[in-house]
Amino acid sequence: MTDEQEKAGPESIKVGVLGAGGRMGAEVCRAVEAAADMKLVATVDQDDWLVNAAEAGAEVLVDFTTPDVVMDNLHWCIDQGIHAVVGTSGFTEQRIEKVRGWLADRPDVGVVIAPNFGLGAVLMMQFAARAARYFESVEIVEQHHPRKLDAPSGTAMHTARLVAAARAEAGLGPVPDATTDEIAGARGADVDGVRVHAVRATGLVAHQEVLFGTTGETLTIRHDSYDRVSFMPGVLLAVRAVRNRPGLTLGLDALLD
Amino acid sequence: MTDEQEKAGPESIKVGVLGAGGRMGAEVCRAVEAAADMKLVATVDQDDWLVNAAEAGAEVLVDFTTPDVVMDNLHWCIDQGIHAVVGTSGFTEQRIEKVRGWLADRPDVGVVIAPNFGLGAVLMMQFAARAARYFESVEIVEQHHPRKLDAPSGTAMHTARLVAAARAEAGLGPVPDATTDEIAGARGADVDGVRVHAVRATGLVAHQEVLFGTTGETLTIRHDSYDRVSFMPGVLLAVRAVRNRPGLTLGLDALLD
Amino acid sequence: MTDEQEKAGPESIKVGVLGAGGRMGAEVCRAVEAAADMKLVATVDQDDWLVNAAEAGAEVLVDFTTPDVVMDNLHWCIDQGIHAVVGTSGFTEQRIEKVRGWLADRPDVGVVIAPNFGLGAVLMMQFAARAARYFESVEIVEQHHPRKLDAPSGTAMHTARLVAAARAEAGLGPVPDATTDEIAGARGADVDGVRVHAVRATGLVAHQEVLFGTTGETLTIRHDSYDRVSFMPGVLLAVRAVRNRPGLTLGLDALLD
Amino acid sequence: MTDEQEKAGPESIKVGVLGAGGRMGAEVCRAVEAAADMKLVATVDQDDWLVNAAEAGAEVLVDFTTPDVVMDNLHWCIDQGIHAVVGTSGFTEQRIEKVRGWLADRPDVGVVIAPNFGLGAVLMMQFAARAARYFESVEIVEQHHPRKLDAPSGTAMHTARLVAAARAEAGLGPVPDATTDEIAGARGADVDGVRVHAVRATGLVAHQEVLFGTTGETLTIRHDSYDRVSFMPGVLLAVRAVRNRPGLTLGLDALLD
Repeated sequence: MTDEQEKAGPESIKVGVLGAGGRMGAEVCRAVEAAADMKLVATVDQDDWLVNAAEAGAEVLVDFTTPDVVMDNLHWCIDQGIHAVVGTSGFTEQRIEKVRGWLADRPDVGVVIAPNFGLGAVLMMQFAARAARYFESVEIVEQHHPRKLDAPSGTAMHTARLVAAARAEAGLGPVPDATTDEIAGARGADVDGVRVHAVRATGLVAHQEVLFGTTGETLTIRHDSYDRVSFMPGVLLAVRAVRNRPGLTLGLDALLD
Repeated sequence: MTDEQEKAGPESIKVGVLGAGGRMGAEVCRAVEAAADMKLVATVDQDDWLVNAAEAGAEVLVDFTTPDVVMDNLHWCIDQGIHAVVGTSGFTEQRIEKVRGWLADRPDVGVVIAPNFGLGAVLMMQFAARAARYFESVEIVEQHHPRKLDAPSGTAMHTARLVAAARAEAGLGPVPDATTDEIAGARGADVDGVRVHAVRATGLVAHQEVLFGTTGETLTIRHDSYDRVSFMPGVLLAVRAVRNRPGLTLGLDALLD
Repeated sequence: MTDEQEKAGPESIKVGVLGAGGRMGAEVCRAVEAAADMKLVATVDQDDWLVNAAEAGAEVLVDFTTPDVVMDNLHWCIDQGIHAVVGTSGFTEQRIEKVRGWLADRPDVGVVIAPNFGLGAVLMMQFAARAARYFESVEIVEQHHPRKLDAPSGTAMHTARLVAAARAEAGLGPVPDATTDEIAGARGADVDGVRVHAVRATGLVAHQEVLFGTTGETLTIRHDSYDRVSFMPGVLLAVRAVRNRPGLTLGLDALLD
Repeated sequence: MTDEQEKAGPESIKVGVLGAGGRMGAEVCRAVEAAADMKLVATVDQDDWLVNAAEAGAEVLVDFTTPDVVMDNLHWCIDQGIHAVVGTSGFTEQRIEKVRGWLADRPDVGVVIAPNFGLGAVLMMQFAARAARYFESVEIVEQHHPRKLDAPSGTAMHTARLVAAARAEAGLGPVPDATTDEIAGARGADVDGVRVHAVRATGLVAHQEVLFGTTGETLTIRHDSYDRVSFMPGVLLAVRAVRNRPGLTLGLDALLD
């Protein structure tokens, strides 16, 4: 985004935020206000009326609310012809089908639902899946703060599965490994044949490295996330894209091409 | 490549190597011999006859010779209907046009000419060009042994230009940088607006890191090359692909899809 | 620090904080309260009386105030026989001599003045100075957010000088570098013969890597700082140490042995 | 070592190499010949006479032979008043006692016996042991080629034990870790309470990272070894030091101070 663009000019995207009082919602408000090509026209929280957002002329609504209200919000948005970008969790297959049904009646409206708006994480996974077919070896090392309950992280598990699927499709056999003498756990967790290691240390936030190796060389893709504000560029990207993408888009992946 | 595949079975690719006595050529011979789906049927060096390769039934010839003989080799290969994979340098626009002319008469023959057979380096550049449009900041740090004459490396220069072009296409402005107080050189070389840093140290071989940053997160793509054998997986990939790719293919990129 | 230690038991260190309303001071208050072996007995800000701290029985006062008040604070502390840990900046040679004079009259009191309480940064510099004599090559790459005005950072400059001094003492000649063809700046800034590179990117906080190389191997010391809370372990270390260290101690270095 | 020093001047150290035909021995010969302050005066292999080395005036003998001949070599060296640097393996407590006995009769002779002459690895372990006492968290990630049989590596095991001992001495409790939901192996091997992860990938040589973390910051010490020549700077260091170090010195550590 260049500074030359006129802030809030006639072509600015009018954005409303649902769940504006929550941690993510508040970040979205700040990010929209800071974006040169957007205008924050409505902020809606628990006790506010959605109708305010429509009256303020919002073209796109960003929803970071809760699973119990998000479906009503979405139904209303689609009815009103307002595009939606949704980061709220809890979208089962059933819910997604329901959204598709609503959109069938309003083919001009776009909805983006994504479990992860981190551009870096999404690109890391795309690149990993793409590199996987060309390298004999691959391992994943993720690093997080020590308060995390699961090991490996969800992102590491998802990456491992993508990589394993790409290897299978390319006809690659098992990763070479001559280990015969192992102290239990040294070689990490086996996720579909891909070894995943989870490091936990005070001071770390959320990091992941995917290491590919072949004869004489390695390729490493590393993602470091320091803050929940790291999701904002992905949210803004979706806000810009959703107006030209009628129908349902699942995942940030589809917007990166 | 899995061990289960029958070595040199009837469907093995018959490969000949031109320049088999050179450093790269010798590595190619070793790599072909070690590949489960290939058979080394001919090795040709300075004083040998090319015709041996044809008599030995080579389907694909790999050429790591010198600029002064490579054109004759290629002309002969195409005439004979033998596919070629070429790592020899010196291919000007003029030479490439000449090869295209020869191939026009033999539409069944495939030729792959690539300046760099390192899969890791090629993927690093592809990924960097792709990530470039989504990140506000980008810098390149390359690291090499201290006997290297040029700084930055050719690969770093090429990467910087690809990244700069992708940024321009995405409408990104200059990379943010508030530096007002700099000791000369601290911020690196400016290559089309992308800062490039060249580290030189004994013990290093050839390494490069492309760092992308946006609010709250960074994405790093790193390539480590330890040995000239790192080109072999790319050469083998080209040998496998060239038989199904009539006409001229420039660069390993085109084979990665 | 283990959880088993009795919080605020009779042997807890009674700590007061001067400048408790500032950003660093507030962090110190939180850190002292969270420490199992300390008790926060007084917080003093701009309009408060220092005497409160004495009445509350503070054994150690931590000063993160401003250069214009810190000397009065220190004089008073030493007079009262209270140990001091000082992170306030602006300590010239002259000021340090004055503090030494005051301490001469109170040989039982300890004062620690440190420009940097980051344990990681201090250890990085110590290790770098120590490794420097054994490696033919060394380079420094520091990475910071793009709002930083100076390049290289103060820490990188200081590290380069320590490394250069250690090399000189060990009789090492210039770092090997065959570069003849350089795009201006590629090889970084020259600080006493040590090349220093400054990377700037959105998303980064404060990071530094010191790379040492010799035949066939490299040793890298890397420090990542994400937050001003990273100074707290160093402050707590100084609070614990100062009671047994009468006289003046300059720099956190001296406490790490 | 600077180029200005006169090669093989009167003050050059006269060095002989035992096991000069072996892989390590041959590297030592090359390294001594390349060193500006040393002169290679004798190379002794399986069928050669040790006495040649004495006649050639060797001041220091470097022994990279085999466990079955090294004791006879050492006994002879000490008798002759020649200093020795020994990289041959197999030194049990019993053998070391025997060497001490021989040295008791020749208090002017120095012997250095070291299991690992890699300066980088030795410094990594020293720094890790030193940093351990100041950081709440620590984990080790080692990375090797996939032909390695043991996981973790011996160096990683040794580092973990040094770190664990330093933590215990500093009174640190267990490393924080809230993991409740682990896929077996994700959290690595537990070596005296320190988690160690072993990565195996084609293209890697021998690498190790020790990660320390405390509030808001991490410190990482990384060692990359690419080649057996990486032991040479350590061997040369020992050759220079042994002449001024009568008696027995065990490990390269003792020479780094």
